[in-house]
Amino acid sequence: MGNKYLSERNLKFLLYEVGQAQQLCQLPFFADHDRESFDMMLGTALRISDQLLYPAFRDLDLNPPELVEGQVRVRPVVRQLLEQAGEGGWLSATFSYEHQGMQLPVMINTACLFAFASANFSASAYLGLTTGAAHLILSFGEEKLQETYVPNMLAGRWQGTMALTEPQAGSSLSDVAVTATPTDQGHYLISGQKVFISAGDHDAVENVVHLMLARIKGAPAGVKGISLFVVPKLRPEGDKLVPNDLNTAGLFHKLGYRGCPIVQLAMGEAGDCHGWLVGEPHKGLAYMFQMMNEARISVGKQATAVASGAYYASLQYAQERPQGRPIAAKDPTQPQVPIIEHADVKRMLLFQRAVVDGSLALLLQCAKYADLEAHGEGEQKEASHLLLELLTPVAKSFPSEMGILSTSAGLQILGGYGYTDEFSSEQYFRDVRIHPIHEGTTGIQGMDLLGRKVSMQGGQGLKLFAEELARDIQAASQVPELAEYGRRLQGSLERLSAITQAKLKLAAAGDVAVFLCDATLYLELFGLVAVAWQWLKQGVAAAQALAGGVGESDEAFYQGKLATMRYFFHYELPKTQGLAHRLGESDGLTARLDARLFAD
Amino acid sequence: MGNKYLSERNLKFLLYEVGQAQQLCQLPFFADHDRESFDMMLGTALRISDQLLYPAFRDLDLNPPELVEGQVRVRPVVRQLLEQAGEGGWLSATFSYEHQGMQLPVMINTACLFAFASANFSASAYLGLTTGAAHLILSFGEEKLQETYVPNMLAGRWQGTMALTEPQAGSSLSDVAVTATPTDQGHYLISGQKVFISAGDHDAVENVVHLMLARIKGAPAGVKGISLFVVPKLRPEGDKLVPNDLNTAGLFHKLGYRGCPIVQLAMGEAGDCHGWLVGEPHKGLAYMFQMMNEARISVGKQATAVASGAYYASLQYAQERPQGRPIAAKDPTQPQVPIIEHADVKRMLLFQRAVVDGSLALLLQCAKYADLEAHGEGEQKEASHLLLELLTPVAKSFPSEMGILSTSAGLQILGGYGYTDEFSSEQYFRDVRIHPIHEGTTGIQGMDLLGRKVSMQGGQGLKLFAEELARDIQAASQVPELAEYGRRLQGSLERLSAITQAKLKLAAAGDVAVFLCDATLYLELFGLVAVAWQWLKQGVAAAQALAGGVGESDEAFYQGKLATMRYFFHYELPKTQGLAHRLGESDGLTARLDARLFAD
Repeated sequence: MGNKYLSERNLKFLLYEVGQAQQLCQLPFFADHDRESFDMMLGTALRISDQLLYPAFRDLDLNPPELVEGQVRVRPVVRQLLEQAGEGGWLSATFSYEHQGMQLPVMINTACLFAFASANFSASAYLGLTTGAAHLILSFGEEKLQETYVPNMLAGRWQGTMALTEPQAGSSLSDVAVTATPTDQGHYLISGQKVFISAGDHDAVENVVHLMLARIKGAPAGVKGISLFVVPKLRPEGDKLVPNDLNTAGLFHKLGYRGCPIVQLAMGEAGDCHGWLVGEPHKGLAYMFQMMNEARISVGKQATAVASGAYYASLQYAQERPQGRPIAAKDPTQPQVPIIEHADVKRMLLFQRAVVDGSLALLLQCAKYADLEAHGEGEQKEASHLLLELLTPVAKSFPSEMGILSTSAGLQILGGYGYTDEFSSEQYFRDVRIHPIHEGTTGIQGMDLLGRKVSMQGGQGLKLFAEELARDIQAASQVPELAEYGRRLQGSLERLSAITQAKLKLAAAGDVAVFLCDATLYLELFGLVAVAWQWLKQGVAAAQALAGGVGESDEAFYQGKLATMRYFFHYELPKTQGLAHRLGESDGLTARLDARLFAD
Repeated sequence: MGNKYLSERNLKFLLYEVGQAQQLCQLPFFADHDRESFDMMLGTALRISDQLLYPAFRDLDLNPPELVEGQVRVRPVVRQLLEQAGEGGWLSATFSYEHQGMQLPVMINTACLFAFASANFSASAYLGLTTGAAHLILSFGEEKLQETYVPNMLAGRWQGTMALTEPQAGSSLSDVAVTATPTDQGHYLISGQKVFISAGDHDAVENVVHLMLARIKGAPAGVKGISLFVVPKLRPEGDKLVPNDLNTAGLFHKLGYRGCPIVQLAMGEAGDCHGWLVGEPHKGLAYMFQMMNEARISVGKQATAVASGAYYASLQYAQERPQGRPIAAKDPTQPQVPIIEHADVKRMLLFQRAVVDGSLALLLQCAKYADLEAHGEGEQKEASHLLLELLTPVAKSFPSEMGILSTSAGLQILGGYGYTDEFSSEQYFRDVRIHPIHEGTTGIQGMDLLGRKVSMQGGQGLKLFAEELARDIQAASQVPELAEYGRRLQGSLERLSAITQAKLKLAAAGDVAVFLCDATLYLELFGLVAVAWQWLKQGVAAAQALAGGVGESDEAFYQGKLATMRYFFHYELPKTQGLAHRLGESDGLTARLDARLFAD
């Protein structure tokens, strides 16, 4: 392909050499799979990415959805993608056979969806929403709901969404105000507004199925009164689909992520919007967390994918663009060198690559935990569950936040050209900016991590995390050139543990506001440690491969891995020092600050 | 005004209470001025900003320049601004009386231009380019050139530009290839292309005057063969302006900064593009550095101004938008609180304010050095020169790089709305991204600082910088609540000094590539120390004011200053720890890395 946006070599290195995905085939659920079937799926994903998705990357940005007479119109490529995804079984790949799935490990599926998203993030977003919504109906919905909705969704004919946010309640789900009034006909009457609903309406599908949070009349206030409903745009009546009094009230014009419509929905303006309860009343938020957790990992993956596209774009530019001369040999009569020869350009490229490969490794690690949680046994199952719970906010936020900085570094490498639309860097910079916002802002992820996850089950998740790291630090200690990096990771882990204990003491003392006020910094610190861990793992795998003897091209690949690992430990991990310094203070500056002091 | 984009109270605090601008009136050059005349200028600038510039902020973004039949068209507000700027004397405010100036201190002028840029960065950019270009002709051009060009430029009828960049030579000025062939008629014939020329063509003026770098036929290779020319779009012949064979070959479509056209120029396609030499042959780059240094400070100011607009936009939103409840009182039956009450939102607002006020203080400090350098005497004049030289890369880069992060924080505060064009946050995020690129990338500023500035005159600039800080640390030690912050600054300064000495040893040992490979990190470290210094100065001024007794509104202002100072010392300055850690290593990872290892 002319333009590269990911590395297949790297994907396979992370899946098989680092992540040992092939081990999953030993579990009964995955017994029909092997490395060959994994590679076949991956190969198909790469083909769709190259042939269908990447060619539409700029087109979807330049021609965003339009709202025409109440109907959102999108580009034809969206329909093609959804049809191919339906036919190819992509929307249910990880589902069980009984649910029309392929029982593909989430780990392999994540790699495939990463390929889609790195080729065209906006287009790929349609898929995950349908899969997550269908999974939610399958997990908690009655059989009738499953039969009515899921097959059409998995065929790519009906779009799924998650409909949480309301104009007056963005991050504050306790304030969800859409109402559901029971009727004696099995359905509820839904009324109210939702905003920022991704893929919430478009003409590439016959119908849109919203998995919507609403409050049954008389329900308790707060999150304990929220229920989950299926609310379709068109409702099935007999053999027909009829309008369900659910209208697209607006379409947002966005900085990036322009290929996917984000809409405002109005339900029940004519008093005739039907919704069907999923599971039991008032338990909607707990159900929705299944989809939200999947979506959070998915956001991390998408952010990493955008960062991947940006990395390969700036790498290509840096390899091809001559400018300037080596710092120690500035003879102006000599030809200019490609800018990749300049130290500061190499630093920025290493930063981009460190973010991309480090984040992707962490996401595949989480995906493997998801597989082991769902289909493993005993201790491993439970441990994987806790590790995934712990790491979900990290895997969502590190790539999202670092995605801003790494796409920005990519744009910087192109200089003035990076600021223009003649290259793709500026689109990546715009596209990636959504990720720290949707599916729970970074601030919310920080509070989830420090306020809930590190102390769940008496801190068991954090203990397991430390054990995972200890195992890999031990492995690194056996490799002379890596032992030093193992020690650095060990030091950072100890720093993280000490900070955690100190923070939890504040919580125990009842000072919740001060305990949580720097949760975002804590999340950043945690992310650096987690990604350093993933880099150490990659370093060990690369060193082992090199020790076994490899050809020239593999030699460059593995040496490049080791160089990028060193970059992460020398340039990124030291940021934990300043973070730990601040987190070690407990003055509660932001918790205690009188908001009136911003006055002027 | 309905929308606020700067704080007049803050500008005056920084000018008079921190920066002691009134001291400048003791210099003979500024003897006609006093606080009253300063405030009058500032008042006028604020009025123009409010009435003309801010109302066009979104309009210029939504309606970028168009290239129609070889002519760039811009919105009418540009002509209005240039006319007002000409009539009001804004384009020559700092010039001497003999050059139609007002002998206004650069410090006051910087505050005024900051107001323009915070109201509308794109529009404000036209002005500084004309001023800088006119200043260059006045400084180095012959009388005839001055008479022909300067009055028209200062009247706002002719646009000035700086024309350095070429397609094959962006940051690498030694590769400038536009040629100048001498004629026997006093002019040269210019031939070649320039790219990325800001305000390089537009229809709000009669003519455009390019201050252009070119190479006289037979000149030495490299920067020692570059000469400076005046190359107008239309050349004066008798009473007429005739086309000068200088055409607009293209218009770039940009991520932001859309109100100002950035063009590609083609000179001499018909062999008839006249240019007039400024000063002596082959000394063009040295002359151009006058304009470049002014432009670098100006970029820092513009970045700060955009960050200021973004800060006040997110502050207003945070004050008005209800969502969620205090962390320790989450009763869902209670009303929601404005999001400014949440610790993480306060943290982001403090970050934005710390960047804006800290950068602005540094820029006004530099502006004062510029005034003392130009119009002071003896030791103070020389010291100011060295301090300005030293701090120019810092004052350019800190606001530019932090501008990305602080406008991003602003966008984050608005959540999903921040990602849409319903609010201005996304425009600020796009607009600010140009600043680390133009007028010398951040990488180039880092090499300028570490490679040239810290060692100039035997390290005299750095020594003077340390003395400036020592004086303010001493002042802080007299204020009980500030003494601790003085010690923190002292510690950071010592860290910076130690790193500097270690790096210079590498240089002395001849390892230039390793010496400079982390210059960008060094620049970041230096910026944190310099801005911490400016925050300590603000803290001292605020504490002194509070000690004297103030009213309620001033009390909130000064307490807000102290809180923001504390934020900077607790959250930003600790970043020096990780940076110093890395800068203390000398493995030269990026200098030595084989670029082929990026292969895969």
